[in-house]
Amino acid sequence: MVIIMKHNASAQEIAQAMKRVQELGFKAHPIIGEERTIIGVVGDERPIEPDAFDTLDGVERTVRVLRPFKLASREFHPEGSVVRVNGTTIGTQQVVIMAGPCSIESREQLMEAAHAVKEAGASILRAGAFKPRTSPYSFQGMGLKGLELLREVHEQYHLPTITEVIAPQDVALVAQYADVLQVGARNMQNFALLHAVGQIQKPVLLKRGMMSTIEELLMAAEYILSNGNARVMLCERGIRTYETATRNTFDINAIPVLKSLTHLPVVADPSHGTGKWELVTPVARGAVAAGADGLIIEVHPNPAQALSDGAQSLKPEKFAQLVQDVKRVAEAVGRSA
Amino acid sequence: MVIIMKHNASAQEIAQAMKRVQELGFKAHPIIGEERTIIGVVGDERPIEPDAFDTLDGVERTVRVLRPFKLASREFHPEGSVVRVNGTTIGTQQVVIMAGPCSIESREQLMEAAHAVKEAGASILRAGAFKPRTSPYSFQGMGLKGLELLREVHEQYHLPTITEVIAPQDVALVAQYADVLQVGARNMQNFALLHAVGQIQKPVLLKRGMMSTIEELLMAAEYILSNGNARVMLCERGIRTYETATRNTFDINAIPVLKSLTHLPVVADPSHGTGKWELVTPVARGAVAAGADGLIIEVHPNPAQALSDGAQSLKPEKFAQLVQDVKRVAEAVGRSA
Amino acid sequence: MVIIMKHNASAQEIAQAMKRVQELGFKAHPIIGEERTIIGVVGDERPIEPDAFDTLDGVERTVRVLRPFKLASREFHPEGSVVRVNGTTIGTQQVVIMAGPCSIESREQLMEAAHAVKEAGASILRAGAFKPRTSPYSFQGMGLKGLELLREVHEQYHLPTITEVIAPQDVALVAQYADVLQVGARNMQNFALLHAVGQIQKPVLLKRGMMSTIEELLMAAEYILSNGNARVMLCERGIRTYETATRNTFDINAIPVLKSLTHLPVVADPSHGTGKWELVTPVARGAVAAGADGLIIEVHPNPAQALSDGAQSLKPEKFAQLVQDVKRVAEAVGRSA
Amino acid sequence: MVIIMKHNASAQEIAQAMKRVQELGFKAHPIIGEERTIIGVVGDERPIEPDAFDTLDGVERTVRVLRPFKLASREFHPEGSVVRVNGTTIGTQQVVIMAGPCSIESREQLMEAAHAVKEAGASILRAGAFKPRTSPYSFQGMGLKGLELLREVHEQYHLPTITEVIAPQDVALVAQYADVLQVGARNMQNFALLHAVGQIQKPVLLKRGMMSTIEELLMAAEYILSNGNARVMLCERGIRTYETATRNTFDINAIPVLKSLTHLPVVADPSHGTGKWELVTPVARGAVAAGADGLIIEVHPNPAQALSDGAQSLKPEKFAQLVQDVKRVAEAVGRSA
Repeated sequence: MVIIMKHNASAQEIAQAMKRVQELGFKAHPIIGEERTIIGVVGDERPIEPDAFDTLDGVERTVRVLRPFKLASREFHPEGSVVRVNGTTIGTQQVVIMAGPCSIESREQLMEAAHAVKEAGASILRAGAFKPRTSPYSFQGMGLKGLELLREVHEQYHLPTITEVIAPQDVALVAQYADVLQVGARNMQNFALLHAVGQIQKPVLLKRGMMSTIEELLMAAEYILSNGNARVMLCERGIRTYETATRNTFDINAIPVLKSLTHLPVVADPSHGTGKWELVTPVARGAVAAGADGLIIEVHPNPAQALSDGAQSLKPEKFAQLVQDVKRVAEAVGRSA
Repeated sequence: MVIIMKHNASAQEIAQAMKRVQELGFKAHPIIGEERTIIGVVGDERPIEPDAFDTLDGVERTVRVLRPFKLASREFHPEGSVVRVNGTTIGTQQVVIMAGPCSIESREQLMEAAHAVKEAGASILRAGAFKPRTSPYSFQGMGLKGLELLREVHEQYHLPTITEVIAPQDVALVAQYADVLQVGARNMQNFALLHAVGQIQKPVLLKRGMMSTIEELLMAAEYILSNGNARVMLCERGIRTYETATRNTFDINAIPVLKSLTHLPVVADPSHGTGKWELVTPVARGAVAAGADGLIIEVHPNPAQALSDGAQSLKPEKFAQLVQDVKRVAEAVGRSA
Repeated sequence: MVIIMKHNASAQEIAQAMKRVQELGFKAHPIIGEERTIIGVVGDERPIEPDAFDTLDGVERTVRVLRPFKLASREFHPEGSVVRVNGTTIGTQQVVIMAGPCSIESREQLMEAAHAVKEAGASILRAGAFKPRTSPYSFQGMGLKGLELLREVHEQYHLPTITEVIAPQDVALVAQYADVLQVGARNMQNFALLHAVGQIQKPVLLKRGMMSTIEELLMAAEYILSNGNARVMLCERGIRTYETATRNTFDINAIPVLKSLTHLPVVADPSHGTGKWELVTPVARGAVAAGADGLIIEVHPNPAQALSDGAQSLKPEKFAQLVQDVKRVAEAVGRSA
Repeated sequence: MVIIMKHNASAQEIAQAMKRVQELGFKAHPIIGEERTIIGVVGDERPIEPDAFDTLDGVERTVRVLRPFKLASREFHPEGSVVRVNGTTIGTQQVVIMAGPCSIESREQLMEAAHAVKEAGASILRAGAFKPRTSPYSFQGMGLKGLELLREVHEQYHLPTITEVIAPQDVALVAQYADVLQVGARNMQNFALLHAVGQIQKPVLLKRGMMSTIEELLMAAEYILSNGNARVMLCERGIRTYETATRNTFDINAIPVLKSLTHLPVVADPSHGTGKWELVTPVARGAVAAGADGLIIEVHPNPAQALSDGAQSLKPEKFAQLVQDVKRVAEAVGRSA
């Protein structure tokens, strides 16, 4: 940490800031410039408050030197992590494709979707039973009945499944029915939920909040990791910006940034990242070209009848084309799909 | 709702879109322009998916006509709502000030803060027992022990209290100890939590998410209202923008916008809205001048020792000055404080 | 400046970074932590590139210590500057109100507007002759003819005038006709224009770009100041965010931030800051309560017929009410209007 | 255009709005819903102000139906445009790579860069002579001397050149020396400059403003096209968001969105889009996989000594690797590079 003193800070203020640094167990190294003095603070700054020194007289601001996450960082775990989901592995040379409907709506719809995505080449089936919806008047998901259908489909098609969990008290239940638990974008900083999924031993797909920085995503992962669950995958799903031509802005930069900062696998969600089915395939290709370890794609047998996210869902035949496109791009960057 | 067809939509595509409109129970009114056809959709559009028509062939986009919230809207409840908290009322001619430390840290700290804010003129004591923290290594709050201290202070100073609840399973407990439950910015779209606070009969202060729209804030309020709890107050606490000179950008526009769209009282939080104690008083004055019904302010007996949010906490004497400033501004706009 | 080395930087990389620091004429102070080494760089960092060290091997990132602006900073000019415009002064105890139509449309319209705003209490008439418009098909302003009308009105009503200049080659011409030159938001980083207005001796109102940080605004002012023109006023006019309920998000935080960072007067534009006439008065009150030195307000005799910005223009009677409201708020914060 | 009336609009207000629609030469089609009335406005809405009806009593808001750009739109020019630059064509099956230093610093530097990028496979040399810089104390470019060097290099290496123009009065001069004129992000809405480049017959690369929408980019192109210059290329170069891990957020969604909305070629700038050289190659691959027609890349013989943008400049050997990577990705999506 570096403390930047104000231009007109007095010698006494500098001395007091150094005293406070030492009280907290750090070493203080002042550097006296012509216009300002700065104080280098040596020690592990992670446990202290980021603004611990900002309130002292004469201090203008402080700058962190160490990253606030540790277990998630590549510095402390230089090799990439591989997450195993039944027979499938994420974080290897192979790009893994997860696909399926936004919501589970009926046995027929789910079976049809599962059949289609498996045929096309997906390795994991996605489908939501508990749905976080902006409006209380929208379809909120089939709940337990949906989970039962998910297990049934799993058994019939031998497809591992991923589904969202939206409340801490549901974690144990959802973990009985699904192979991967998804923490959605709106819950990325639902710390009670992060604790809960940190205490089970099932893979977790943690989606970046639509308003969250890359560092905050890694801190959310740190919550899960520090609770004992090491099977965490991160998901870039688009962020909120001023642009209204698309539902979100897919942050492709985040893919190589995350690959350099963390050892955790990085999955891309171009369905939410764009919000429009016409854009899903080009952005999926882009994400794989930029280094994503996996994709998660919304596919619906009949998007016009979907109870949620129809506009961004691909029809099965478009999805089959996407898989072919992605395979070629994966090979062009030395991977497979 | 208005459906805007593509420039080159065929007559058949237009007919199919109209058919789908009618299937869903609406009336369809086509208007044929030189370059495009649009279809006016008459009926209550709230229960249908916003993108229900976006996936039909030949449709370019759809535009909502009705606002998606109803119980929260001023159209359906033209008079402003007044929320009662013990003897205090929010939403009247008087601007109500809530103040206190970010976190409860000890009996002494809380007592000292309560004494100071009551002396200065605050009507409600704020203090956190369960803290949503970005880092798992930061102080997470005193939990139940903090709630007990809060009740003790309440009894000693006859100050109503507000505290945050961060998990659905804690709602009943927190409601036993505090007079107002706060749903924090990171939980504004934690729908499980919104359901839970919708099912009690205690006032709720709902903070706007740091990257939530005004409409999403009102939809979150709609969740609470539609579950049966009418005692909802909204809080503008700054949004996330590209500007890094402040922690958040306080959206002063939101105050008059909310006052026109909804009957619910609007509280301003200039502490989080700015993130720097030097800015709290001018922005608090601004918020009241723009029409806020209340303020919520972080005050700490010793900000430099605070376990959270020290940089944005006022010392008691600065807070006392803020109250005096705000009183004068409130009077200038025909209110009191 | 502080150079933060990578976690695994070698001793040789640290030595090379220090050597480069010294080559550029600075002193290097290394501080060796347990996880990382940082290098304090002493000297005036303003002339060097911000990323001068970022490309060296082993460097993770660099942090500036000094602010990049100097002439605009309050550190080097602790007293607030007062800008004189004919008999009016901006930057004093009095809040100055500038008002008038977005565009000059005709002699009648301009005369009527000038009469109304003077009657209501405005000190300066605003009106545009050269209009920067998003669409090439929109009204682009009356140009020279408009400037002539502006001078005519000035003479008839003894009202100083402010108008926008949008091209370097027009600066001399506009300076002949108007008392204050406005550099608009879209031109805040039009450096050729900043140079040009820096070389005349007329007051300049520099509007913050809708996408610009406070620091970039001050750097744009620094261009004008460093070219020799000290009569600069800054204007907060709302920034672009994800919120779509308003045209822009008025950044009220920027007012006290600017007052602390710079000696230049700060004017608020709640017309552009909100984009809706219903919101202009409450936000104008808020801006003055937060410390603005002036206001600039769009007023049109008949907004429904305005050739630009009708939706955010006040009718004369609404403007007269705004002035009364603002006077009361100004007095509440120890000023006049 | 659709006019949405307020919930409580009176019959008289509706009649007045319809009258105003007709006065402006449009046809008005009212649709009376249970909660609101809407008025469909038929006719070419482009020449009227977007807020022409917003100020009428009883009107809540208006929604455009037609896109505001015409010459730039794919609707009116379904085939993709091809821009010819000497022997090179942009907008074909081949992905074109432009590369070179941010600023021209010396003959040696420019020659070395030109040699390297040509060897590696670039088709066009980029290099800046007039530099828009945030700070007046930063290197502002070599100006005319730089242009002369650019022409010299052009002749020696037979490489077409692209360089930025920052003021209308420089357009004719720059057009004498360079093959493509670049309008930079900060000048995307410098309408005087857009007019000027619209009146020459040289290709223009128009960069998206860092906080401009896709629609605004197309309106800026419309300025150039409507002035008579049809040789326009668009460039996505990253937008400003709340994320601070990268200099900008490269908006990969914009590539397929632009390809659907406009016939103009789309070039990607991953150097500015990321701001960090380590990220340039993965994002370049992603942009091509998503459909970009070209790339523009900063390459410097010695980034650590660069006078601008060193941190995002590739060394020649890294650039050569990028070209190889991009070729493979281009082939995977059915193109060449």
